[in-house]
Amino acid sequence: MARQLGEGVVRGRIGVVGLGLMGGSFARAFAAAGVEVYAWNRTRSTLELAMIETVTGELDETTVGTCELIILAGYPASAIEWLKKNAPLVGEGAIVIDTVGVKRVICARCEAICAGRPFTFVGCHPMAGTQYSGFAHSRATMFKGAPLVVVPPEMDDFARAEVLERLKELLAPCAFGSFTLATAEEHDRIIAFTSQLAHVVSNAYVKSPTAREHKGFSAGSYKDLTRVARLNAPMWTELFLDNADFLSEEIGTIIANLQAYKDAIDEHDADRLEALLAEGDRIKREVEGR
Amino acid sequence: MARQLGEGVVRGRIGVVGLGLMGGSFARAFAAAGVEVYAWNRTRSTLELAMIETVTGELDETTVGTCELIILAGYPASAIEWLKKNAPLVGEGAIVIDTVGVKRVICARCEAICAGRPFTFVGCHPMAGTQYSGFAHSRATMFKGAPLVVVPPEMDDFARAEVLERLKELLAPCAFGSFTLATAEEHDRIIAFTSQLAHVVSNAYVKSPTAREHKGFSAGSYKDLTRVARLNAPMWTELFLDNADFLSEEIGTIIANLQAYKDAIDEHDADRLEALLAEGDRIKREVEGR
Repeated sequence: MARQLGEGVVRGRIGVVGLGLMGGSFARAFAAAGVEVYAWNRTRSTLELAMIETVTGELDETTVGTCELIILAGYPASAIEWLKKNAPLVGEGAIVIDTVGVKRVICARCEAICAGRPFTFVGCHPMAGTQYSGFAHSRATMFKGAPLVVVPPEMDDFARAEVLERLKELLAPCAFGSFTLATAEEHDRIIAFTSQLAHVVSNAYVKSPTAREHKGFSAGSYKDLTRVARLNAPMWTELFLDNADFLSEEIGTIIANLQAYKDAIDEHDADRLEALLAEGDRIKREVEGR
Repeated sequence: MARQLGEGVVRGRIGVVGLGLMGGSFARAFAAAGVEVYAWNRTRSTLELAMIETVTGELDETTVGTCELIILAGYPASAIEWLKKNAPLVGEGAIVIDTVGVKRVICARCEAICAGRPFTFVGCHPMAGTQYSGFAHSRATMFKGAPLVVVPPEMDDFARAEVLERLKELLAPCAFGSFTLATAEEHDRIIAFTSQLAHVVSNAYVKSPTAREHKGFSAGSYKDLTRVARLNAPMWTELFLDNADFLSEEIGTIIANLQAYKDAIDEHDADRLEALLAEGDRIKREVEGR
């Protein structure tokens, strides 16, 4: 049975909490589609800037209850803090999602906050971004074609299907390319590899003293390997520590693998080195389905 | 005093040894500019394919001596082997370059082969390429805007300036973006970091068992980190072992740096982890000159 929207909830109206790269991009995508967007941001000047042409109005006590979809787009701790404070204001039948890069911590906390309340929390993580942070780098097309990982709460199959269907409809202006259902545990385990490890490796890569001499000696591979060395250190610190177990294991795995190449090189063992390289090449082809 | 071209040398005519990704791209760039290209390739069918619309004729006993510029574009060992065999045929005043990704081994061997002969060998390494190999992936615009690292032999300043000036003119159809002069040692030390390490790290990255589950959970950072995991294993084995000292040191450096993040994560030391990440972010900004 589809849950009715409570009185005062405006169908399709969006609330965005945090106007950084992610929140700003959501706000722009919805605004570009003519959807009303209400926003909150810790730094007021950014909100005022966004209100010039993107954001309709402020997400506050009077407007929180009118939004059908609220997107928590800040840091993990601030997303939880906002929801804790504002949960009593969220409208009946509304959906609250987040965009945070770890899901076990967020989903457990947010689902607990929502328990017994007339709205639904659904953990989300858009597989999109850039190495730059902040509203200034956000854009309406950020999510176009990107996968959205969706971590729904425990609920019966019919209620779950209804919520996911509504969520897909509400997010249509973002033009996500696909939706990946996962448990919070699966998400965190896989994201430790696909995203968090990439940032650690890239950030570690530039620490070689040789980095200062790269100009005139570098091409695409250096550029690609070091692109996400630029990162928002406080945000990633929080995300990494909230996923410490899985991330630590992935770092351990790549260290062990790197050591194998180093050993083969140090021993001038051409056969072993070639086998190691051919194995990586084969795996890369296989996992890309080519 | 500018060296005269010997009788039989055709001004501007190019010879290409090895029609892989690099050699094929040189051949296409010159052909697109209307320059005559003569080529040799170990596999005859590729040469015949290239002769349909790119290559003018075969680089053999009768044509080697007519080329003003000869480009050794094969593997390190095969480039040396070709030059050893064909050096007596190379025309007076000609320039021979290579495209090999290591320079100490190549330059020492090729300069020795040229000693006392009437042509000049100049080590070169174009900072361009793709993760794909072979003539089929070569293209005329491969070098457009890319740096070319140039390792000239020991010679007096005037002769050197003249050779480099002629080389730049001859390579004009390739549209290199800049020329970086280096010693073979400098080249090998820096390239171990900018290119070889990138391939090792990328190849190691995909070896996590989690790689098989990346679909629907990955975005740009995963894609960038793993792009060059696909590689030509026999070729890179040869290049890595010819640069074992510098590459081993770079792998050791990144392993030590990765271990520092792992330790901070394992100890849940937020301050240390944030400092490590902020340091990488700062270095990346500095080395890009932003």
